[in-house]
Amino acid sequence: MPRVVDHDVQREEVLLATMRTLAAHGPRGTTVRRIAAEAGVSTGFITHYFRDKGEVLAQALRLCNERSQERVAARLEGLEGLDAVRALIGAVLPLDEDRLLTWKIWLSFWGRSGGDEPLGREQRRGRESWRAALRRLLGDAQRAGAIRPDLDPAYEAERLVVLVGGIGLQSQTRGARSFRRKAWAYVEDHLESLMAPAPGADPAFSPDTHRVDTGESP
Amino acid sequence: MPRVVDHDVQREEVLLATMRTLAAHGPRGTTVRRIAAEAGVSTGFITHYFRDKGEVLAQALRLCNERSQERVAARLEGLEGLDAVRALIGAVLPLDEDRLLTWKIWLSFWGRSGGDEPLGREQRRGRESWRAALRRLLGDAQRAGAIRPDLDPAYEAERLVVLVGGIGLQSQTRGARSFRRKAWAYVEDHLESLMAPAPGADPAFSPDTHRVDTGESP
Repeated sequence: MPRVVDHDVQREEVLLATMRTLAAHGPRGTTVRRIAAEAGVSTGFITHYFRDKGEVLAQALRLCNERSQERVAARLEGLEGLDAVRALIGAVLPLDEDRLLTWKIWLSFWGRSGGDEPLGREQRRGRESWRAALRRLLGDAQRAGAIRPDLDPAYEAERLVVLVGGIGLQSQTRGARSFRRKAWAYVEDHLESLMAPAPGADPAFSPDTHRVDTGESP
Repeated sequence: MPRVVDHDVQREEVLLATMRTLAAHGPRGTTVRRIAAEAGVSTGFITHYFRDKGEVLAQALRLCNERSQERVAARLEGLEGLDAVRALIGAVLPLDEDRLLTWKIWLSFWGRSGGDEPLGREQRRGRESWRAALRRLLGDAQRAGAIRPDLDPAYEAERLVVLVGGIGLQSQTRGARSFRRKAWAYVEDHLESLMAPAPGADPAFSPDTHRVDTGESP
C-alpha cells in the first residue's frame, strides 16, 4: 500500500517541520501556515491529517520525546552502574545540534501547557519517564556499591533532573563549544559527591595511583 | 510638577501590567493592546511613552531585574560568609508569588531574544550581575575559611547558576508548596559539598553534637 506509506512519511515530515518551527518561533508563533511552508505541503494537508494546531504540537512533542528515548536506549545498551547513569544523562545533555533543538522545544513549552491536553500529558510523560529511569539506575548503582548507601535514589534522581534542566537552560544562552566541556564537568562534579569510596581503597589515592604505588602490574 | 510624577507612576503601572501579561502569554502573546487592557490605559498612552513593543518588553524586564536586585540587597544586609551566599541564592529562588512571577518572565524570554537588542542586553546584564555577585561572595566565604580552599569560586558560581536555573525551571511544573522545601534542600545539599571542614573539628560530629559530647556549656 504505497499510498499509506507515503502519507506516513509526509506526516512525519510535517512533525519534523513543526519541531523546527517550534524551535525558531515558539508555540505561539508556530502557525499551521508556517508549518506548511516549512514542510512544503499545503495547509489543507495539515488540517486533513491533524485535528487542530494543538494536536500537531502535541504529536511533534511526542516525536521529540520518542527520539530522545531512542538516544537513551542506544546509549544504555550493555552498561550498568555509574556508566549507565552517565549514559542516561548524556543522552539528554544539549551537546549536539539534535539535543540542542530538543531542549529548545522542551523549553518553548515549559510552564505553558496550562490546561492544554494532550500537550500537558505528553510533557509530563516525557519528564516522568526520564526521572523514573534515572531513579532505577541510581538504585542499581547503589546496590552494586557505586553510590553511597545513605542516599535516597528517588531524591538524588530529582537533584539530577534539576541539574540537567539547569544545563539545558544555560545551553540556550552560551557559546556552544565551551559549554559542552563545562556541561560534563558539572555532571561529573555532582556525581562525584554521590559516589561511595571504593571498598578497601586508601581515600587519598585514586585506584590508578594506588596500583602504581603498590608496584603491582595491572 | 505633579503631571510628571503621575506619568512616572502610570509608566510603572504599564510595566507591571506588561510583567503580568508576559507571565500569562509570553513575549509573542504580549501585544500593546493586551498590555493597555491590563494596565487600564489607552494603546495611545503606550505608543506615546514607548518607542515600540520591543522597548516596553525590555523596560519590563529591566524593572523585573531591578526588583530582583532590591530583594538581593535587602537580604544581604549585614551578612557574610555562607550566610551571604545563602541570602543571595534565596533572593532569586522561586519560593513566593513575586519570585515565581519573576521566573516565569525570565523563562519566557530565555533563548528568545535573538538579535533583539536592547532586550538581549538586559537579559545578559541581569544574569551576569547575579553571577558576579555570587562569585564575589563565594570568594569571600573561601577566604574566611568556610569553603574548601581547592575550589575555584568562578567555576562554583557557574555551578550554582546552573542549579538555581534548574530549580527555576522545575518551579514552573511542580506543586508549589512541596517544591519550596525541596528547593532549599537542593541548595543546602549542594553547598554542603563545597564546605570546608571546621578547623580542629571531629569530622564525624557536627559542631552542636560535638559541644554536647565534650560537656562544655555554650
